[in-house]
Amino acid sequence: MNEIELLNRIRPTLPTNPNLIAGAGDDCAVIALPASEDVLLLKTDAVVEGVHFLPDTRPDWVGRKALARCLSDIAAMAGRPDSVLVSMGLPQDYDVDYVMSFYSGLNELARAYGCSVSGGETTQSAGGYWFSITLTGFASKGRVVLRSGARPGDALFVTGELGGSRAGKHLHFEPRIKEAQWLIEHFEIHSMIDLSDGLGRDLRHLIESSGVGVEVMNEAVPISKDAKRIALESKTGMPGAIQAAWNDGEDFELLFTVDKSVAVSLLDAFREAFPQISISCIGRITGDKGLHIRNKEGREVQSGHGYIHFENP
Amino acid sequence: MNEIELLNRIRPTLPTNPNLIAGAGDDCAVIALPASEDVLLLKTDAVVEGVHFLPDTRPDWVGRKALARCLSDIAAMAGRPDSVLVSMGLPQDYDVDYVMSFYSGLNELARAYGCSVSGGETTQSAGGYWFSITLTGFASKGRVVLRSGARPGDALFVTGELGGSRAGKHLHFEPRIKEAQWLIEHFEIHSMIDLSDGLGRDLRHLIESSGVGVEVMNEAVPISKDAKRIALESKTGMPGAIQAAWNDGEDFELLFTVDKSVAVSLLDAFREAFPQISISCIGRITGDKGLHIRNKEGREVQSGHGYIHFENP
Repeated sequence: MNEIELLNRIRPTLPTNPNLIAGAGDDCAVIALPASEDVLLLKTDAVVEGVHFLPDTRPDWVGRKALARCLSDIAAMAGRPDSVLVSMGLPQDYDVDYVMSFYSGLNELARAYGCSVSGGETTQSAGGYWFSITLTGFASKGRVVLRSGARPGDALFVTGELGGSRAGKHLHFEPRIKEAQWLIEHFEIHSMIDLSDGLGRDLRHLIESSGVGVEVMNEAVPISKDAKRIALESKTGMPGAIQAAWNDGEDFELLFTVDKSVAVSLLDAFREAFPQISISCIGRITGDKGLHIRNKEGREVQSGHGYIHFENP
Repeated sequence: MNEIELLNRIRPTLPTNPNLIAGAGDDCAVIALPASEDVLLLKTDAVVEGVHFLPDTRPDWVGRKALARCLSDIAAMAGRPDSVLVSMGLPQDYDVDYVMSFYSGLNELARAYGCSVSGGETTQSAGGYWFSITLTGFASKGRVVLRSGARPGDALFVTGELGGSRAGKHLHFEPRIKEAQWLIEHFEIHSMIDLSDGLGRDLRHLIESSGVGVEVMNEAVPISKDAKRIALESKTGMPGAIQAAWNDGEDFELLFTVDKSVAVSLLDAFREAFPQISISCIGRITGDKGLHIRNKEGREVQSGHGYIHFENP
């Protein structure tokens, strides 16, 4: 049973209470705060040696990445991050310097985003290191952006460039906290998600939560230099690069929708506010369920979801 | 390096921010909420196969215990638990029924205490199961009870009976949420901690955080039936039983202090409110630093901390 099937079995069993606004199934949980204009955002995420990092990955980079993944989810809800808890599984012969270095990377990123590290837990692992991070944040009650708000007629945007993250970006990406705050301050963002599983899979999450469909212009999908270089080296060429942009994952960019009437002004204003970060309009939300990918002639080259494979890209 | 030494190295490096009221070093972190009469409590805790439970422990009991440990910490701050996040490390050949059973135990306890389960994360483990739980709660701003509030002249109380938890109680204990709520509603509780590491170690945490000392009347320490039975079977007799009460840990009872002037009325009122739960006054807080244990003749039989061993109990 894969992770999605497992979560689909677990989700209906989970208890709710009157404070729960949005639970499992979005980037973060959203919790009502008594007598407050804000809501509480909660995110938990784990990194495991051998799965998310290698034994020889620099531990300060592991610490940075562990927290950055959670920050990216708080960004996707347009939240302001606040406090970090760290739960660690350490092997019996753990190295104190390794743990201190992990914390130095995590602490530095926490400081950069104004977060406290407020607690944690240390336990023994069965082998190797694992780190489970919980991050809290706040968001204005009326301004939380969920995955489920996409509407037919929306334009679909993505920040940055996609694919090839494993070449290095996955350890060093900058979570899009500032950009997401800017977006909700200047535009009515209908839906948003961060790209962790890959454009194909995360776009599926977005349209399924929203009960809509989407058409993507394949040539508009921004491809990273690393994805292009890797595709060139492996002789898969442009088809390999575009598949990497769709599937590699760990891009940690923002995928979001706004009404198409503001699409052009959003593009212009974003480029002025963040000249270093590319932004692309890659498609439109429709009432016709599913993911439809068109080439520049308008021909549908793929309709599906999850892992995206092109026969004739 | 042991866990306490490691945490003592990590703690001074941790970032703070203006919302952080109390961080690493108490039962829970305490976070200010914008424009609210309440504060946010945060606790994270992990259970690991082979460390906190065995491969053949019933998974619903593991789920119950994983959450109950966190509830006990929220109780120790006199908090109202609110929402649970679950981060799981699953072996490659994990059993779906095992995971569903884990959740059934956790969910049932969450419901009993009015908590939602609002999110989680699934990842691969290096071997065996591990579960890292985060629990949030709320407490009234002026009524959070810290470890650090004990004052010379306080009487020291403990709920329940101690020792022998491994015989079964550690999987089935009832966190003292209700009792802690009742205590702060009726008395000014100066300091409180939950007994997870054992009376000797947790009392040391309490007095060191408060900068005080304590005298304990050894004969007043309540010993559980299980601790007595195990001591009888292992022929360690009464000395074995009292050592178990001091050292076994995982009692998950409340240890707290109040001004001695209200000690008798607290004992009477608690017994009336909770006739099923024993309560004991076991000592007094002093200005003379350290832990001093006296026998019924008043002779000091131990002065030390951490693991408590009696030469002549």
